[in-house]
Amino acid sequence: MAGSLHLFRGRNCVTPGAPQDAARETPCASPGDPPRVRHQRFMLRLLKHPGPPADKRADCPAMSEIRASRPLSVRSQAARKLVRRAVRAALCTALPGLGPGSRAVADPDADPLAGAPFGSLVTLATDQTGAPVLLLSRLAEHTRNLTADPRAALLVIDSDTVHANPQEDARVTLLGRIAPDPDPALRRRFLARHPYAEMYAGFADFAMHRMTVTRAHVVGGFGVAGWIEDPETLLVPSDIATALDAAEEAACAHLTRTRAGDLTRIAGPGAWRVVALDADGLDVVPDGPPDSGPALRLAFAQPVASVEDADAALIALVAEDP
Amino acid sequence: MAGSLHLFRGRNCVTPGAPQDAARETPCASPGDPPRVRHQRFMLRLLKHPGPPADKRADCPAMSEIRASRPLSVRSQAARKLVRRAVRAALCTALPGLGPGSRAVADPDADPLAGAPFGSLVTLATDQTGAPVLLLSRLAEHTRNLTADPRAALLVIDSDTVHANPQEDARVTLLGRIAPDPDPALRRRFLARHPYAEMYAGFADFAMHRMTVTRAHVVGGFGVAGWIEDPETLLVPSDIATALDAAEEAACAHLTRTRAGDLTRIAGPGAWRVVALDADGLDVVPDGPPDSGPALRLAFAQPVASVEDADAALIALVAEDP
Repeated sequence: MAGSLHLFRGRNCVTPGAPQDAARETPCASPGDPPRVRHQRFMLRLLKHPGPPADKRADCPAMSEIRASRPLSVRSQAARKLVRRAVRAALCTALPGLGPGSRAVADPDADPLAGAPFGSLVTLATDQTGAPVLLLSRLAEHTRNLTADPRAALLVIDSDTVHANPQEDARVTLLGRIAPDPDPALRRRFLARHPYAEMYAGFADFAMHRMTVTRAHVVGGFGVAGWIEDPETLLVPSDIATALDAAEEAACAHLTRTRAGDLTRIAGPGAWRVVALDADGLDVVPDGPPDSGPALRLAFAQPVASVEDADAALIALVAEDP
Repeated sequence: MAGSLHLFRGRNCVTPGAPQDAARETPCASPGDPPRVRHQRFMLRLLKHPGPPADKRADCPAMSEIRASRPLSVRSQAARKLVRRAVRAALCTALPGLGPGSRAVADPDADPLAGAPFGSLVTLATDQTGAPVLLLSRLAEHTRNLTADPRAALLVIDSDTVHANPQEDARVTLLGRIAPDPDPALRRRFLARHPYAEMYAGFADFAMHRMTVTRAHVVGGFGVAGWIEDPETLLVPSDIATALDAAEEAACAHLTRTRAGDLTRIAGPGAWRVVALDADGLDVVPDGPPDSGPALRLAFAQPVASVEDADAALIALVAEDP
């Protein structure tokens, strides 16, 4: 993972289990420092610090829920967790300008809209690897934009924690390309997360799309920011993803049947149905008539590699949140 | 106002006071129709309907809070209201690519990041005309992007109404250019809305920026979308804005002093201080030690043209919300 990590606010910067000398190499601003001092430190790091050497890297936790040392960088973990549980995102695309095929000659002087940024609201899910999955209508502005230039950004903001200053909210921007993808697993996982979309998912102008992520920018709060330049760290290894994809439907039914009590303890009163399962967690909906809202995400404490691991991770969630 | 209005869901499409024949010219989907029928109507309108002639235009309310017929189009009113009360937005910018000045030769084949969309979270306020005002650090990715290409989009999502399907949320995308602006009124209005930003607003790398809006795209909910191509309809006329700018600080103090009871009735228990005033409403904060959150927006039912009008509009809010 390249890129540097920038610190402004005083946070716990020691990754548990990381060598203390690595932590000393990336001194954090102290909460007791006056704001100007902390900001100067932040600027200094931003402008000059190359970051610790890879073998000593002890990334500072960008978000408070990152508690344990893991093989993946804390920044990648945080980004993955945010994207996995997101139900909505801001999609950034480039307007094609006034004429067809104008991207190739995107010239703002000739056409002020050629290549100009556009933003829209989308709902999202993820495929087994963690790549974003969207249901888009070809009649929508953003889909027309993507047809001319598939390059896009998805901004996901942590909606679980509300801060007085919205700049404190954790968020991740995924950069990559978005294209239609007929893989039936995408539709299944999207509709598991967004059951109300069944109403229009079959219309002729709608199609499933997948984002191929090339890099990501993570902001853990005010002044805590950094790039993830290796998209692999955001994704589940393909052999694990393939195995979980094949097992997903049966595993959902099995967990719904055998873990009813555990699901109630974690997700809340009533009966719950597991509708999606991946290496990072489960999607559950209230059992009964179709619910009007998105599925609830239950995130595992650590990524799992098999259905058996998922079962154990679910039980671990009960112990964690009694 | 050019562009067509697209309807999908059954909504009240008659602007009160508008001629009924205009309403008949833009038939709405009926809530009783099966989804496929409603969607076909939506597609038909989207692809073929030029919209009613300007003199008979009766725009369908994009948002439920639009209740009365007014000189401005309902779509512009809705967009203005959303932007005025927004405390945060998604900022869409274009990455400059790998080299300086690469925008001019934005060639995705040579540099896959040249001109690629980027998305980030910003906090915002508005100037007296309604143009978005941002406090940006030159160290942030989005500011570097804007330096290379000032074209940007701001996506504002209605946070006051929560829908089961996020696609139902009203939102507006403002398109335009963002540049630094030293006008002291911008800083004053931004800090009135975001008092916690006082801590870092004076740092050397931060500067106030203003967006010059060139067009906007409004989505009132699923399938209800349209362009606003005349940015003037989103803004307060400059003579009114200039007069209110000159009167703002004294008027805020006056309303705080003379309308304490009314403010409590509208904004909630406790004493409130008016910290900003414009043609579309007021920003108020709890009186006392600095509050940790953004100011609360009190929107007038209709735009006002003077401080006297603002006083009357505030009293009208009490009658409306007893």
